[in-house]
Amino acid sequence: MKDILRKAIERELPQINNYLDKLLPSENAPPEIVHKAMRYSVFSGGKRLRPLMTIESFRWAGGSGDEIYPFACAIEIIHAYSLIHDDLPAMDDDDFRRNKPTCHKVFGEAIAILAGDALHALAFEILARSGKVEIVEDVAKAIGTYGLVGGQVADIEFEGCDVSEGDVRFIHERKTGALFTAAVRVGAIFADADENALNAITNYAKNVGLAFQITDDLLDLKGNLKKKGSNIYSDLKLDKATYPRAVGKERAFKIAEKLVQDAKKVLPDDRDNELLNAIADFVLERTY
Amino acid sequence: MKDILRKAIERELPQINNYLDKLLPSENAPPEIVHKAMRYSVFSGGKRLRPLMTIESFRWAGGSGDEIYPFACAIEIIHAYSLIHDDLPAMDDDDFRRNKPTCHKVFGEAIAILAGDALHALAFEILARSGKVEIVEDVAKAIGTYGLVGGQVADIEFEGCDVSEGDVRFIHERKTGALFTAAVRVGAIFADADENALNAITNYAKNVGLAFQITDDLLDLKGNLKKKGSNIYSDLKLDKATYPRAVGKERAFKIAEKLVQDAKKVLPDDRDNELLNAIADFVLERTY
Repeated sequence: MKDILRKAIERELPQINNYLDKLLPSENAPPEIVHKAMRYSVFSGGKRLRPLMTIESFRWAGGSGDEIYPFACAIEIIHAYSLIHDDLPAMDDDDFRRNKPTCHKVFGEAIAILAGDALHALAFEILARSGKVEIVEDVAKAIGTYGLVGGQVADIEFEGCDVSEGDVRFIHERKTGALFTAAVRVGAIFADADENALNAITNYAKNVGLAFQITDDLLDLKGNLKKKGSNIYSDLKLDKATYPRAVGKERAFKIAEKLVQDAKKVLPDDRDNELLNAIADFVLERTY
Repeated sequence: MKDILRKAIERELPQINNYLDKLLPSENAPPEIVHKAMRYSVFSGGKRLRPLMTIESFRWAGGSGDEIYPFACAIEIIHAYSLIHDDLPAMDDDDFRRNKPTCHKVFGEAIAILAGDALHALAFEILARSGKVEIVEDVAKAIGTYGLVGGQVADIEFEGCDVSEGDVRFIHERKTGALFTAAVRVGAIFADADENALNAITNYAKNVGLAFQITDDLLDLKGNLKKKGSNIYSDLKLDKATYPRAVGKERAFKIAEKLVQDAKKVLPDDRDNELLNAIADFVLERTY
């Protein structure tokens, strides 16, 4: 990991967690059980890569100050909601995530479904406070049937099927790419980025998101529970559509490398792209 | 049912359904299966009482024109999402609603969960187009853990317990009341209602919503599948907290009558309250 990224994570992660703590309802507020479940899932040790991208996109586009943090956290809250629902027995049926029992294993299925629903609504409550309806609309589109949910549906439909590179791309652009894209767009729109900058960082995030999903799949193949912290082989178990399955491990990594190159290329030279480039590079280096 | 309400339903229901049809993704757009599931649930013959209240609240508060319809539909879309998740095996485990198999019985649990999630996101995409972030924030709050989701959680927690009138009120104010309230507030805020009018119609809807849930519980007791169209006794089956269970049938109906009276009383005399009053009265007369 490049120094600039390590320092950014050291600086931003405590801030992000601090804001998340303030934004989520207290465990002592009734109905306690669902607030506990929401906090359990949000504070389960995520890398906070998506909110970091929102914050950096905001600064990259000329924004300054701390006002961006709640909206960066809203993206992480959506990520947490989608993981809770994704892990449910009716979906991927995962018992562990990041070395901890999944939400429904601890709180039961009903509370897990409702905790996901509550995080989903909370994210929009927070995003509305940005004062910008375009941010709300943009994120809502990204997580609907043409984005995140659409990717999950296709993921389920392709289980056990022969998949082409195009099929996997379709799934991952939605399942992972859409929220990466939303993350940077929230930051850039909040900073009043012009259309060129917004388009550039959108394309950057599309490529990074897709590369991230490929290295995720590759880590699943060679990973172990301790390192990656989720059910190893859980996607293999279900015969999920993945890049390694569609094109083989070596070609999958080559595609990820090309995507990271492309991501860095679309950023205009006259801006400070150093941290964004380091994030893109990290996607290829990561071991967890 | 009063003539003015019958005519309003005859006039508005086709319009509401027409807008819903335009707002929901086509069944032919991929991923088809989730779009089919969303449409199946939204077009399963609801009374459209909530969007009707949004439209009437908008006009009552001085609004005119057709711009309100999409936002009224967004409320109905949220209602559909909450019913899909509420019917899931892990929740109320209902096989029928409105005489038709529930979403998960037709499409499976995974697609039902995702269809609910997609409707949830779609509602916010539509609400954002109102241009008013306060509408987005208001609705998001109403359906989070201090509203709709909170009511569902309490409903689950109180299953099989002895309940007081206060407990049932806590549940139903959230589970049913919150979305009724959001429905009228969206209309009034979109019409730029002043604070007095907004408070009045909010209190009206709180009372109507609670009365609606009481008569719903009473219909469950005496109803039959043909009339009410959902699993009869489904709430009794699970030993749910209901007004009839907490205070008996007669007192429950008396409470509903008082709530309807109160609802009508809070509306200021200098406005045209006729349709709102007819809706409140209908809650006591309804047989389905």
